Formats: sequence, C-alpha cells, structure tokens
Amino acid sequence: MRKFKPAKRPELDFDDLVYGIHAVGEALSAGEELRIIHVAEDRKKDAVLRALLAQAKERNVRMRFEPRAFFERVPFKAHQGIIAIAPPFEYASLPELIGRRREGSPRLLVVLDHLTDPHNVGAIVRTAEAAGADGVVMPSRRAAGVNATVRKAAAGAAAHIPIARVANIAEAIRVMKRAGIWVAGADASDGAVDFAAADFNRDLALVIGAEGSGLSALIKRECDYLVRLPMRGKVASLNASVAAAILIYEALRQRECSLRP
Amino acid sequence: MRKFKPAKRPELDFDDLVYGIHAVGEALSAGEELRIIHVAEDRKKDAVLRALLAQAKERNVRMRFEPRAFFERVPFKAHQGIIAIAPPFEYASLPELIGRRREGSPRLLVVLDHLTDPHNVGAIVRTAEAAGADGVVMPSRRAAGVNATVRKAAAGAAAHIPIARVANIAEAIRVMKRAGIWVAGADASDGAVDFAAADFNRDLALVIGAEGSGLSALIKRECDYLVRLPMRGKVASLNASVAAAILIYEALRQRECSLRP
Repeated sequence: MRKFKPAKRPELDFDDLVYGIHAVGEALSAGEELRIIHVAEDRKKDAVLRALLAQAKERNVRMRFEPRAFFERVPFKAHQGIIAIAPPFEYASLPELIGRRREGSPRLLVVLDHLTDPHNVGAIVRTAEAAGADGVVMPSRRAAGVNATVRKAAAGAAAHIPIARVANIAEAIRVMKRAGIWVAGADASDGAVDFAAADFNRDLALVIGAEGSGLSALIKRECDYLVRLPMRGKVASLNASVAAAILIYEALRQRECSLRP
Repeated sequence: MRKFKPAKRPELDFDDLVYGIHAVGEALSAGEELRIIHVAEDRKKDAVLRALLAQAKERNVRMRFEPRAFFERVPFKAHQGIIAIAPPFEYASLPELIGRRREGSPRLLVVLDHLTDPHNVGAIVRTAEAAGADGVVMPSRRAAGVNATVRKAAAGAAAHIPIARVANIAEAIRVMKRAGIWVAGADASDGAVDFAAADFNRDLALVIGAEGSGLSALIKRECDYLVRLPMRGKVASLNASVAAAILIYEALRQRECSLRP
C-alpha cells in the first residue's frame, strides 16, 4: 500500500497576503492585482462570499477551494475562510514621490517616523490615499512595512498611493526640504503651532511620530516647524492614525477653501 | 493524604478588565479607579512593569502576583502579564449629557449609530475626550458597549467623558433636537454639505455610522443635515474612527477660530 503523500506546495509569503472578506473585496473593487484566491470549501454557499467570487471571476482572478486544514497555515485568525495572494508590494522611491506634481494643488506627503503598529500604518495609508495625498514615506527598518496587516487596515488603498521606504528619515526630510517642501512635525511641544493656525496650503510633508514616544529629538530638529492639536481633555495624546487624519484633512480643507471664490 | 484543592476564585468579569502595560498605565495616570492589579510572577523584574507597579502602590491600588496559569483564563492575548479589574462601567443618562454646559463654548456630542468594532468605539471615545466633547451616545443593543477592548482602545478616556446608552438612536436624536442641539450626520451622499462649509460653531451632535454600511436611512432622515468629507482617492470610505476624529476636530477648530480677535 502506498502512503498518501500530499503534493508539495509553495510556502505562503505572508507579507503578500490579503485576508478576510472585507479586505479581499476591497482589493478586488480597487482593481488590485491578485494572483489567486483561496476559499474554504465549507463556505462555498455563503452568500457574501459568492458575490465576491463572482466579482473575482469577472476580473479573471484564479480561485481555488481548499479544505479547512489549508487555513491552519495562515497566521491571521480573522481570515474568515478567504485569503488572496498579491504580488510582492512594490515600493516607490523618494525621488518619485517628490517628483509627483498635480496641477493646481501643492504637494502633500505623509512621513511616518518609526510607527510599529501595522494597524496605524494601514489606517494612515488609507486616509492619505482618500485625501488624495501624493505619497507616504516610511523607514525600511525598525518599523512596520507594508505587510498583510497593513494592507488589510488600508482597505485596498496601499495599491493606489506611492509608498517609499527610506534608510534614514532625517536624511529623507533634508531631501524634501531641498526640493522646496515644507516639513511639519506633529508634536505636542509648547513651541508647536496650533494646527488651525499653521499654513498647510503649500508643498508640505507631515511627519507623524510613533505611538507612545512621538517624534524623536533628531527628527523634531530637522522639521521646519512643529504643529500641535489642541488637547482639551484628560487623555495625554491622540492615536497616531487619528492625529495624522486630522492634519491631512486640515491640509485638504485649507487647500480647498483657498480655491473658493 | 489530602488532595490539594485550589481556593475558589470569583469569575473574572471581562467587561471590567483593563489589560496590557499601556492600558493599565494609562488607567493609573488618568486616575481611573482600579480594584486590583494582577501581575505575572515571572515579570516581576521587568523595568517597565516595576515603574507601573510603583505608580499603583502610590495610588493604593491592591496588587497580586500570579502564576502564568492565572492568565490562561484571560481571553485577551495581548495582556502582557498584567491585568487590572475596574468597577463596572457607569453609564450616564442622555438628559445628563444634554444638561452639561460649559461656559463660552457650545455643546458637542458624538452619537454612534450601531458601531460594532470595539476598537473604533474606543478610538472615538478617546478622540472625543481629548477634544473636550461633552459626551458620547451609543445604542444599548446590536453595538459594542464599553467593554474591556473599548476601554483599552480608549486609553483611559472612557473614565473621563460621560457615555450614555440609549434604547433607540432615532428617539435620542429627536430628544437632542428638542433640546436645541443641531444634529449632523456623517454621510457621503450628494446632498451632504462639505465638512469645511458646515457650521459647527453651535450646539452640535455628530452622528457617526457603522463601518461598511454607514448611517441607516431612518437616522439620515432624523438628522438636521448631513456632512461629508472630501474623497479625492480611489478608496470609497474612511475608517469610522478617522471620519469621527476629522469632524470632531473641525468642530473644535471652528469654535476656537471664532474666539480669536
């Protein structure tokens, strides 16, 4: 009797994995490239999943039904019986980001200073893309890169906004300043300008500090100026993705107001 | 030989549990009432934990070192060997929230229309408190209440802002309108006013819809008007806690600008 020997399968690269019904659906809707979608056999009849698979078929994405055991290899619990494999994330370069110009609107970049929480990184990428920002800059080490969790939290946005990884954030700030971009660091220090009083209607890079520690002293020194959000309660700080969102939309507000007659 | 019989312990009420170094630290710093802190024996020498325990001692919070097995009962993986038990959460009533008046500033309430993600609920509570809002209103059913995950995501803020649970959000909106509060629903419909053009400098309740589905048709009809955030990218929506934060801080911005000479 021959022993059953399962076919060898390539290892899953978890950085390039989109998981969960909502995230895979967003990736499809956003026109993100997907190599294959793996679906749990026992969810074949789920109405939500079927609608999603119809969408995948329309877009010619390969699908395969898998036994439950397949999903045991997936390290993310919230996969809901569906994962998709995307091509490896393609980062942009800093010069590419800086070179992007939109007619009639100053540039807007978002720089992340060593954020380690992938949910925050993903949420900021999503907000930056939604606001029409030109790109996101993040460090290549000691920080969350664009992995599966980031892509999920970004709800498909990571495919639509250039993201550059740089070896050194301070150096990247210097490069941006030389390119005529004003660099504003989000910081609660006394010397910081209130966000509503800061002029965001010009080429601008917003620098967001890590959860807990905030911007490092070195990065603060490199910024042209610091901006703060008013804190009127007892909690000492805002979530990094919340602070980033408020500043990004304040920039959008100032720019759109300036266009009004 | 007598069998070893462990002492009976009261069941943990997970709704009233604060877990993880950051959350317990925030709860202590915020002066939140804590009944007891349980710490894993094997983390006794951890420097961060020791600083936190010194703070607990100063505040006369009872502490107990526990074997690792104790933490197996805790359903939250991210406990980091430390949990604190808080008294059951005390909700405020809607009339209490409406009755709060601060001198020189119009009222600001945040209404959550059936948000189910406790991270979003917690993040919104944190932002509302940080912005000095007067309270948060949420439904008592089919939504995330103030549980351990919400308290953790709120980073201690839940203790400092009144939160009311109501049986019916539509009815709560009618009560607020009768009390002279303008009710603005966050919605991307065509008929909605751009957030920057809306007048938030008056007694205001911001209604935030659920992730995915947004505001229900019924709730939209009850609102005095709808406000939208500009969407300039390809993703179709913002995270609920991000949208709430942008609107809350836009209200703060308009109010503070109006005070400037």
